[in-house]
Parts: sequence; structure tokens; C-alpha cells
Amino acid sequence: MNEFEFINKYFKPLTSKEAQNLTNDAALYKPKLNTDIVISTDSLAEGIHFFGNENPRDIAKKCLRVNLSDMAAMGAKPVFYNLSISVPKNKANIFIPAFAKGLKEDQEAYNIKLIGGDLTASLKHINITITIFGETPSNQAVSRNGAKINDFLYVTGYLGLSKIGLDNYSSNSKDLRQAKQKYLLPQPRVNLGMELRDIATSMIDVSDGLVQDATHLAINSNLSLELNVNQLPLPNLKSLQKKELLNAALYGGDDYELLFSCKENESRLGDLSKKYNIKITKIGVFKKFQKIYLNFKGFDELPKKISYSHF
Amino acid sequence: MNEFEFINKYFKPLTSKEAQNLTNDAALYKPKLNTDIVISTDSLAEGIHFFGNENPRDIAKKCLRVNLSDMAAMGAKPVFYNLSISVPKNKANIFIPAFAKGLKEDQEAYNIKLIGGDLTASLKHINITITIFGETPSNQAVSRNGAKINDFLYVTGYLGLSKIGLDNYSSNSKDLRQAKQKYLLPQPRVNLGMELRDIATSMIDVSDGLVQDATHLAINSNLSLELNVNQLPLPNLKSLQKKELLNAALYGGDDYELLFSCKENESRLGDLSKKYNIKITKIGVFKKFQKIYLNFKGFDELPKKISYSHF
Repeated sequence: MNEFEFINKYFKPLTSKEAQNLTNDAALYKPKLNTDIVISTDSLAEGIHFFGNENPRDIAKKCLRVNLSDMAAMGAKPVFYNLSISVPKNKANIFIPAFAKGLKEDQEAYNIKLIGGDLTASLKHINITITIFGETPSNQAVSRNGAKINDFLYVTGYLGLSKIGLDNYSSNSKDLRQAKQKYLLPQPRVNLGMELRDIATSMIDVSDGLVQDATHLAINSNLSLELNVNQLPLPNLKSLQKKELLNAALYGGDDYELLFSCKENESRLGDLSKKYNIKITKIGVFKKFQKIYLNFKGFDELPKKISYSHF
Repeated sequence: MNEFEFINKYFKPLTSKEAQNLTNDAALYKPKLNTDIVISTDSLAEGIHFFGNENPRDIAKKCLRVNLSDMAAMGAKPVFYNLSISVPKNKANIFIPAFAKGLKEDQEAYNIKLIGGDLTASLKHINITITIFGETPSNQAVSRNGAKINDFLYVTGYLGLSKIGLDNYSSNSKDLRQAKQKYLLPQPRVNLGMELRDIATSMIDVSDGLVQDATHLAINSNLSLELNVNQLPLPNLKSLQKKELLNAALYGGDDYELLFSCKENESRLGDLSKKYNIKITKIGVFKKFQKIYLNFKGFDELPKKISYSHF
């Protein structure tokens, strides 16, 4: 197949009306009244973000989901996405059909559609870029800079699972199956993110590790954050020591949980937790800025490990 | 430098207010009233779309310009763009500063800004994806499907130059310098495209070669197009034979000229041609559909060469 045949067979069926059946040079989007558009991009590079021997269906889902998680962190409703894939010629026939199947399944799960993109060859490795578009009512997107003094810090789900899954990718332990699954297929908190729009004063998704992402909220809100390390929601994994769990929770990336500040609102958060069956844990409190942005409570000294860097 | 340092030093200065200083998970775009948003994506892969030994400044410009050309083809005013780059670790220090310099220069030339993106490592080759955003007054974007019977087909500039430049990339002939330059740095017809919004009934940019792109207009408008091969604007290159020039004009990609249909309107087109100093040539006419979409006039048989395919 040439690229037009690939596009017609596998990608055109995934498109929204804005894509106009991919018959133009560009997609045409008519924005709704009183609506802001939220736009984010994440790329996955073979050998960096994924091994390359995963099922392409899962790679497609991971790429969509890391982008969906950015929409969740803004409190936005995801509506459509743009996709660019570069694939070596000798992998295209195997990769593209399975990849498109993954897109289709997650499009249905998250109620989004494709609006356009580009399909090209590459010399050796697969590269995928998704730009996702979401909507919020005007001026209601949640930012990273709105935390107030005495707001509490909450996080969804468990922390560190994805890093544990990655570090134990070749393990066959049943105890670690859930962690590997979380690494392969994150669960972006899209519906919960939209509901938090009303009460979260700042929000981010945990993609670079708790320490780094919590620090973003503190810096942007110009406050100090006191993180209660004893309260972190650690997964119940018997094969790992507490120290390993804690390290993964503090520094592991790719959790795609929501980290947000709000005033004490236990009953509303309890209701949301039940509605979506997602644990929500209070793990810190914001204070007037003093000296440093992030203080650890229940920990003798500041853990020093730095987070992942691409370069 | 890690990716945050690269981003802060080289990319943050290029951003628009929608990027919010890159301090959030996503950009926030407040659409204007009565305005449609036009969105397009083009990727460039090392070894496929560029050699890799070009000046990164020119690679940046080429990537922006192929995207700008899609805006021109829709009659849209480009406003901002999203950028994703994957670069091998050992190339980042050299590549990124020069690449960002190219972006800066073309941002100023075309009055656009960066709204966000992603910077990651890659294993071996550079991959660049730009998603560009343009605006048109509601319902005024030009599509590929509006050509009417007796509309003429026009094209801007000269055809085939970029393919000739690519085929003679290692030549030192002065005669071919202009062609090499056109291959390296296309000239998207952005301002002219916006002005053609009023009179063009259909439009496309010549990126896959005249035959293929003209056929898109005919198919989407459901008409037959009679292409007058004797009228094609061939570049004046003494070192090449007419047959080579014609082949490049018909099948060469990457010209990024505008190909559009409109009613006879010589005086308006003459004015636009003078205003922008861009040749505009009548090269065909649309007829009621009969048998095939594309007929060649002044040519004994249908040239059979097919256009470039990635796979």
C-alpha cells in the first residue's frame, strides 16, 4: 500500500466532520460560542518512550492517553486529535493496521475523533506525535498557578506504579502485573478532571514524577508546599521494599494521575471518588512562600534524586 | 542542557500569549467571533524529507513553510503553530540552537508564533512535526471541491524547480542554483492565498506534483480538467532539456505553488500578480465530467509516471 491507501483504509474511518474526509489541505474547526480551546502535544519516540516490540495497538492507546491526561489536567473535555506517524517502510504493513485498531478502540472509550495529520516513512524508528484539542467553558480551564495559602494538595490513584512496571518490565511476577499494565496503558482521569474544574484551584498531571510536578504547582502559585510523605498512596506490592515504593512514588514518571490543590472539601471529593471509583488522597498543604518551594514532612532530609531528562 | 533548559532558552522566547509561557499542561486559545480555525500538520523525517546535513536553520524554515503553504491553500491567515521535535542526544546541542534561530526568523517573516509542543530524545534520526493554525472569516475557507464548469485553472510561480533542485543537489552549476534554493526553502504564497479567498472556487498547494494535485481538484469537484501542457510555466534553465523540465513540472513535488480554479478574471489576477511579484499562469479549464478526470492538451499521450509514495 502507498500512504494514500493506508490513510483511506485505516485513518479516514476514524475522522470527525472537521477533517472533511481528509479531502482538503487542512481541517476546518468551527469553534463553539463561549468556549476556550485547549491544545497539547506529546510525542512518543521508539526506543525512548516505548521499546518497539509492544503491540502497536497499545502504543496507539498510550500515545492518545498521555495526551488525554493533559486535557484532564486542564479540566478540559477532549474533542479531537491530530496524528502524525513516521514509520520505516518495512514496518508499515504490520504496524499501521494494529495501531489504527488501538486508536479506534480508545476513540470510542474517550469519545474523541481524528481531525487530520500526516503519514510518512522514516529511516529506522517509529515516531508518533499527537496534538489533542479540548474545550472548556470560557475562562474555566484549570491552570498550575491558582493554589492559595492553606489549600490542600490531593492526588488520584496510586503513585509510582508505572515506574515500577517499567523497572520490572521483564518480570513475570503476578504481584507486579498491575504495575506493568499501568506502564503500558495509563488511565487518564478525563471525567474526573472535568468535574474538578469547579473546585481545583490548580492542577497538573503526574507525568514527570510527583516531586517535579508538585514543585511546578508551588512555583507557579508562588507558595511553599509541605508534602506529607507518610500520606503518599503507595501501591500494595509485597515483592518490593517500602524504600523502593517511596522512590518510585516521588520520582517515577508516567503515572498520569491528577495532582491538584483545593480548599478542604472532603464530602465533594468523597462523592467524586465513589462516582469514578478512583482513590483521592490528601498529601500536602500549601503555605506562604518561605525559602524553598517544596518541604517534605515525615522524611528526615530532602530526597536528592533528580527526575528523568531527555538530554 | 536538559530539555527544560533547552525549552526555556530557545523555545519559550518564541511563544505567543496562548502558550502561557509554557507553564501549563496545554495552550489556551480563545477563538475570535465569526472565525473558523484551519488546522494542518506536516512532519519532516531525517533521511526522508531532508538529508540531515543541511543547516538546521533551513530545516526549521522548510518545516514551517510546508505548513504555511497548507494555510495559503485554504486562504487562511496563519496565526500560530505547535512544534514537536525528537532529536538524538548527541545532536541536540548543535541542532536545537540553530533550528530555533530559523524558527525565529520565519516567525517574524510570516507573523506567526509558537503555542507549545514537545521536545524529546530519539535514538538515531531527527523527526519534526509542526501543526499549524490559521483563521478565516466563517465559511470562507477555500476547499478543493468548488470548481465549476468553465472555470479556468491557474498556477503561481514556476513548476518543477524544487524537483530539479533535489535531483541536482550536488551540482555546482550556477544555472541550477535557483532550483536548489527552491528545494531547500520553499516560498509559501501566504498573502496571495488570503487574497484569492474571494475569487478562487477551489485551491490546493502543489506539494505532490501538478498531475496528482490537479487531479485532486478535478475529483473533489467532480469535473474533468483539461490541462494545457504547452502553457505550463517552466523555469528557464539552459542546462536541462525540455523533456526534463516538463517531467519535473508534471510530477515533481515540493513546489508549494498555489493551484486554483476561478472564473476568467484577468484584471484582478494581473493586479495580484503585480502586487506580490508572483507570476500567475492559466494552464487549464474545467469541463463537465467525461470518462477521466484529467486530460492533457498539447501532449500525445497521458504521461504515465506516478508520483512519490512513502511506502
